[in-house]
Amino acid sequence: MRRLVRIACALALSAAAVSPGAGAEENPAIDYRQRVMRTLNEQSAALGQILSTVVPDDNMTAHLEAIALEASIALKSFEPKVEGGGSLPEVWTQWDDFAKRMNEFAQKTAEVAKAASSGKASKEELMTGMTDALSCKGCHDTYRAPTN
Amino acid sequence: MRRLVRIACALALSAAAVSPGAGAEENPAIDYRQRVMRTLNEQSAALGQILSTVVPDDNMTAHLEAIALEASIALKSFEPKVEGGGSLPEVWTQWDDFAKRMNEFAQKTAEVAKAASSGKASKEELMTGMTDALSCKGCHDTYRAPTN
Repeated sequence: MRRLVRIACALALSAAAVSPGAGAEENPAIDYRQRVMRTLNEQSAALGQILSTVVPDDNMTAHLEAIALEASIALKSFEPKVEGGGSLPEVWTQWDDFAKRMNEFAQKTAEVAKAASSGKASKEELMTGMTDALSCKGCHDTYRAPTN
Repeated sequence: MRRLVRIACALALSAAAVSPGAGAEENPAIDYRQRVMRTLNEQSAALGQILSTVVPDDNMTAHLEAIALEASIALKSFEPKVEGGGSLPEVWTQWDDFAKRMNEFAQKTAEVAKAASSGKASKEELMTGMTDALSCKGCHDTYRAPTN
């Protein structure tokens, strides 16, 4: 228990560091899935910076792996049927389609990450693969409330 | 080039989804390292939710791996000496100490992630290891501007 208090403390201090919006949700299930999706966003945006050459590409493989890792757990984070937090009810009323898309997302990003870590794929090939895998808008248009 | 435009589009749409603060920095080097650090924050907060049992622990190993992955590239994201964005000048004036701490952070989180993926460590052991590894405050007190 003492350890749990210590880690909770460390994590809370860490959480206090970020944008005010982060962790604002009161429902843990919503809060959790938003952390997963925000991670995907941060990582794909970092990748975008690399691809547009405004930052060096040293960490490109790590970002591809981080995206694949998060994509692999994203669907599970939506399993609790707790509406809100920007998710439209269609996530759960059309679960089969939502799950199919999320699983494709996980599969495609895993393939690109694997190609990257093998060292055999060119930057161009990885870029093409990730362009195909990161079809965020297709899902967001159907399953997420408009953000503006 | 066409592909780059497509992926930039996908990534931009993705980025527009998140908290307003994200990506607000104009300097790409600052923006990039903040994405790395925000990822660490989101992942450690998600882990904290699991440890405090408000969400299921199915994805615990994935979060530990994501933290280790991001920790492994965090130091590199600070290599460009671009002050600002919440980083104190000490990051670069005391680079040896900063780098030592970041490398320890990467090493410790990697050990915990490895223990988790081996399946041999108990939840309690992983928790203890990550409590030790996630000593965020120690670094933030010295190297990050106060956030309130």
